[in-house]
Amino acid sequence: MVTQTLSSYITASSYEKIGEKAIYEAKRSLLNWLGVAIGGSQHESVKKVLAVSQVIGSSPQASVLGRTEKVDMLFAALLNGLSSHVDDFDDTLLETVLHPSAPVYPAVLSFAEYQKKSGKDVLEAFIVGTEAAARVALSVYPSHYWKGWHITGSVGGIGAAAAISTMMRLNVEETLFAIGIAATDPTGLREMFGTMTKPYHPGKAAMNGMLAALMAAQGFTSSTKSLEAERGFVKALSNEESFEMITKKWGETYEIEKNSYKPFASGVVTHPAIDGIISIQKKYQLLPQQVEWIEITGHPLVEELTGKKIITTGLEGKFSVYHCVAAAFFQLKAGIHEFTDDCVNDSCIKGLREKVRLVINETYREDQAQVKVKLYDGREYIHTVDHAIGSQQNPMTDQQLQDKFIDVTGSIINTEKKRRLIDLIAHLDEVDDLAEFFALCCPVFTENHS
Amino acid sequence: MVTQTLSSYITASSYEKIGEKAIYEAKRSLLNWLGVAIGGSQHESVKKVLAVSQVIGSSPQASVLGRTEKVDMLFAALLNGLSSHVDDFDDTLLETVLHPSAPVYPAVLSFAEYQKKSGKDVLEAFIVGTEAAARVALSVYPSHYWKGWHITGSVGGIGAAAAISTMMRLNVEETLFAIGIAATDPTGLREMFGTMTKPYHPGKAAMNGMLAALMAAQGFTSSTKSLEAERGFVKALSNEESFEMITKKWGETYEIEKNSYKPFASGVVTHPAIDGIISIQKKYQLLPQQVEWIEITGHPLVEELTGKKIITTGLEGKFSVYHCVAAAFFQLKAGIHEFTDDCVNDSCIKGLREKVRLVINETYREDQAQVKVKLYDGREYIHTVDHAIGSQQNPMTDQQLQDKFIDVTGSIINTEKKRRLIDLIAHLDEVDDLAEFFALCCPVFTENHS
Repeated sequence: MVTQTLSSYITASSYEKIGEKAIYEAKRSLLNWLGVAIGGSQHESVKKVLAVSQVIGSSPQASVLGRTEKVDMLFAALLNGLSSHVDDFDDTLLETVLHPSAPVYPAVLSFAEYQKKSGKDVLEAFIVGTEAAARVALSVYPSHYWKGWHITGSVGGIGAAAAISTMMRLNVEETLFAIGIAATDPTGLREMFGTMTKPYHPGKAAMNGMLAALMAAQGFTSSTKSLEAERGFVKALSNEESFEMITKKWGETYEIEKNSYKPFASGVVTHPAIDGIISIQKKYQLLPQQVEWIEITGHPLVEELTGKKIITTGLEGKFSVYHCVAAAFFQLKAGIHEFTDDCVNDSCIKGLREKVRLVINETYREDQAQVKVKLYDGREYIHTVDHAIGSQQNPMTDQQLQDKFIDVTGSIINTEKKRRLIDLIAHLDEVDDLAEFFALCCPVFTENHS
Repeated sequence: MVTQTLSSYITASSYEKIGEKAIYEAKRSLLNWLGVAIGGSQHESVKKVLAVSQVIGSSPQASVLGRTEKVDMLFAALLNGLSSHVDDFDDTLLETVLHPSAPVYPAVLSFAEYQKKSGKDVLEAFIVGTEAAARVALSVYPSHYWKGWHITGSVGGIGAAAAISTMMRLNVEETLFAIGIAATDPTGLREMFGTMTKPYHPGKAAMNGMLAALMAAQGFTSSTKSLEAERGFVKALSNEESFEMITKKWGETYEIEKNSYKPFASGVVTHPAIDGIISIQKKYQLLPQQVEWIEITGHPLVEELTGKKIITTGLEGKFSVYHCVAAAFFQLKAGIHEFTDDCVNDSCIKGLREKVRLVINETYREDQAQVKVKLYDGREYIHTVDHAIGSQQNPMTDQQLQDKFIDVTGSIINTEKKRRLIDLIAHLDEVDDLAEFFALCCPVFTENHS
């Protein structure tokens, strides 16, 4: 009955029933997600899949956000999911490490564009789809992850299917079948981390979930107990049997309310150190040649996951807390540009990197760090971060999310468009025609700004 | 190194290196597969997915076999994979219960049609793709199956990716990435058996595998050890570590040489009984009103899997050995038409069904049965089947495969086309231009013959 109950909850959803808090967080999720999707849109992995869409003659139904090309709804879902995850800079539900927007928003938006849905439709479908995905994630976590599944891809398709079912106003049986078709089609092994196939996972989940809902809308049948059956999704892909997580207290609060956003374009364990050095620099504006050393004290995982000292590529820089701190010292941020090959190999940043050292303290929490800067003249500056920015205790403010949006979208769209998009998203529930939204995501030239 | 070695073997393949036995069996596989694909092409599940392809504006690149519509290569792979498995009448590698043609041939043929490949290209790509899929299947079987995976879908995508990589002459690294992208994207839970989603599995595998190869051809990257890694395909989807099955003695013989074909459109455990009653009827042409009872002696699984006595639908008929025997008594076959609702509910067949009884003998093998017919006048006819037709010891002859092709394609294409297709497939290695092949699979009208 679990899948049946879930489907009945999904179909009983309505925009009016959803509280303001969830709507507010869905808008923040969209701003963050759209920024990183546009920011990732010039990545070579996106161009490669776009070339495939051209080989199969995809029809121009929906936008590749941040680009001038249009492709069919399914490929738009795939491409926008890919671009939004390629920089590992999207949002996270920390309890299961599910990135909710990357598989759900691309499906919702490409469908909304072609089918001319409203802003309220988009917000409702995203919240309901995320709710379904997050709850299935809770039902399979953690063994699912340890078995080797990348939960954002494997569970994301169910979220996309639930979202499109919501948007299409499918009935309970159709929604049940949409979830079943998506459940039989999970994408994503953790082995793919570090390759283009990692961001392919949420993209493919968005595509699979949308296809599932489109098929169910035509009357295609599936199991009626795809999640809870003996040979169903939960048992085949995890050792858990936490089925009650899927439906318990549905509608009382929404999982999207717990969403968190990355202020920095690297793994969360580096964030307290980056937060600390930025705090010091904002206050004292030190020059690198004044610095004798910088000492970071943090949780053991900082060294285990990000202890790389010798690095030559931007991707490696994400796994070097030494680089993260050195780059943030200069730039007062750690965005996409701080993890380019150029930045990692800059001689000034390399020089400062050599002055950074790491002390592990097992009593520290993961979101905690102390940063100490010692100058040649003997002065010392210390900043202690109790809860890094972006953690659940210290969420990013609206202003910080807007600044991130402006930063990550770079020169792909101009400042005027950025401002207008920020405003549009803040008032998305009042927008009946999303044509302007999609037009604003489109650059004038595709190839001249990468 | 397993995936790397597999990829190097795939790229080193050539038509000339493949022995005659494998080529011969690939042609028999194609004849059988094409028949059931055309036979299934009017099924409502096919029409529903076709409707989705129209919603997304799919471009006319490749044929939906048995229909007049053309769709893009990816959707053609999906649709032809679906139609060829919807009647559960396709081929089987009995060792792992992998149905090799259903995920591999649709990918190969839709690519071949649009890219104007030759008959030799098709045969080589199918044999290599099947080899890859069958060996990965051996490496995960049996725990993969018991965990809940439908192996034809979950492993089939790797076969389709290997086949398209072969056809595109991808290099070792590209092939490695194609396999990685397909491996991260398995489709198919056994929970879906009995719904339209079951035949969706090989169709989606064909689509996923083709997409993977098209992406890899563009330079999209993936893991280089997707099969054997700690968080890779084999460990995430099974409890086996039989990696050596994937590459051992590659090229010495081909798995396709072990392919088997169903003479009857029901589960294999019913086949010895059907074979037996047909043998008696071919010899004695008994009338139903002469029969007092028919007694089937067989393996315990016959009762466990097909012991349904009261049935009202064609699908249930497949799980009733009583119906199988009664229908075969009248028709001298048990094809698609014998498992329609009409046939199951025919009063004559129902009457005879009540005269059929079952005796279980634990010493019998699964491909063995004894059929005894007792007439009212006291005469008894006994036929013992040691190895049912279609089993590995008693394979279907070319003539029987041709008769099956003619039967399952029904009135969708006319007799002249059937004869010409049988001839074309027998000489496929001599065909440079497959345009005629695809034209022959196309009926004059789409909707008037279902």
